[in-house]
Amino acid sequence: MAEEVKLLKTWSSPFGLRIVWALKLKGIEYESIDEDLSNKSALLLHSNPVHKKIPVLIHNGKPISESLLILEYIDQTWTQNPILPQHPLEKARQRFWAKFNDDKLIPSIWSVFGNGGKEREEALLENLELVERELKVKGKRFFGGDEIGLADLAFGWLANLIGVFEAVTGLKLIDGRFPLLSAWIQEFSDIPVIKDSWPSHDELVVKYQALYDKFHAK
Amino acid sequence: MAEEVKLLKTWSSPFGLRIVWALKLKGIEYESIDEDLSNKSALLLHSNPVHKKIPVLIHNGKPISESLLILEYIDQTWTQNPILPQHPLEKARQRFWAKFNDDKLIPSIWSVFGNGGKEREEALLENLELVERELKVKGKRFFGGDEIGLADLAFGWLANLIGVFEAVTGLKLIDGRFPLLSAWIQEFSDIPVIKDSWPSHDELVVKYQALYDKFHAK
Repeated sequence: MAEEVKLLKTWSSPFGLRIVWALKLKGIEYESIDEDLSNKSALLLHSNPVHKKIPVLIHNGKPISESLLILEYIDQTWTQNPILPQHPLEKARQRFWAKFNDDKLIPSIWSVFGNGGKEREEALLENLELVERELKVKGKRFFGGDEIGLADLAFGWLANLIGVFEAVTGLKLIDGRFPLLSAWIQEFSDIPVIKDSWPSHDELVVKYQALYDKFHAK
Repeated sequence: MAEEVKLLKTWSSPFGLRIVWALKLKGIEYESIDEDLSNKSALLLHSNPVHKKIPVLIHNGKPISESLLILEYIDQTWTQNPILPQHPLEKARQRFWAKFNDDKLIPSIWSVFGNGGKEREEALLENLELVERELKVKGKRFFGGDEIGLADLAFGWLANLIGVFEAVTGLKLIDGRFPLLSAWIQEFSDIPVIKDSWPSHDELVVKYQALYDKFHAK
């Protein structure tokens, strides 16, 4: 049977981008469908009736949602260029940092972006420090080791969006503070599959500037 | 090498209880260490330096944290009585509902417990309705099918704590509203490994009543 792979995403979502990267790293052909979240398609509502959110991967008609779970699905279904290591302990470690990104790091950056203030900035910097330390402990190019893995794909948004965030807020977060994270951003961005899939920096700045102005107009 | 398995938990935490159930279902001998969260042990702080939270599983000296990730680790390390199905799609489904429990259902019940109000109660009931519907779609005894799986272990807190919650708040949430969930609670509670590991209902009521009084004293 010919494989049918569709990906529901938006042009700018870092959660959708994770899946793009994984499919490209694996060399999987897929149809990309950009959703307008102000007018969600019947396909999206039907495919993810619980959360009604992108990304959704539809493989031979079967939908899978939640980006980290989609990455696990992709890695188990197409085993070339593994995203997760085999050893259960290393696997747990990759998953731990991917979850830390989603549960702690992203909310802490949104909180600075939306509300700001010294206390929130310090909480964000503490989270970035924990990520920096993990890179130090591993002593490798990537969170996954010598090749990129689940945690790299989860932290991947940093490589492009942190520059957008800094441009919009005027804050300097990474350079000069977190040398290992800076080096990781460079290594990660240099991978062709990653570099070729970024949305335009300028368009992202326009989008996030509008959001920022909206948050701070109150 | 003799296996050394330690579990850091508390007497009442449903997140720790998941791990107890999984280890017992697998027939793994372990040493249970109850933490006092107001005075965390050096072992806990050293084993989970990022979150400083229970549960932590320490297997031959290596710590693993985050309860759902510990369950994955256990299932991969000791393969008897599988917690996760083999097929990637079924696996994604179990993980999806376990994540739904942690990200949506538990925060929505805490929100009713802590603040209350009609709107929060409705949000909680909507989440319970989604769980009820999943049981209907599956048409099986358990979320995992005919045997208990990852999602059952995640939703497991419901089977005991919902009664405590109802006793403390005076709300009636499950019985008469969600027949499939009621039946699941019964089936789940009847499993000896589960039944034998519950903390005492009366002690839980004392604990949660004190918390409730504290929240509502303001």
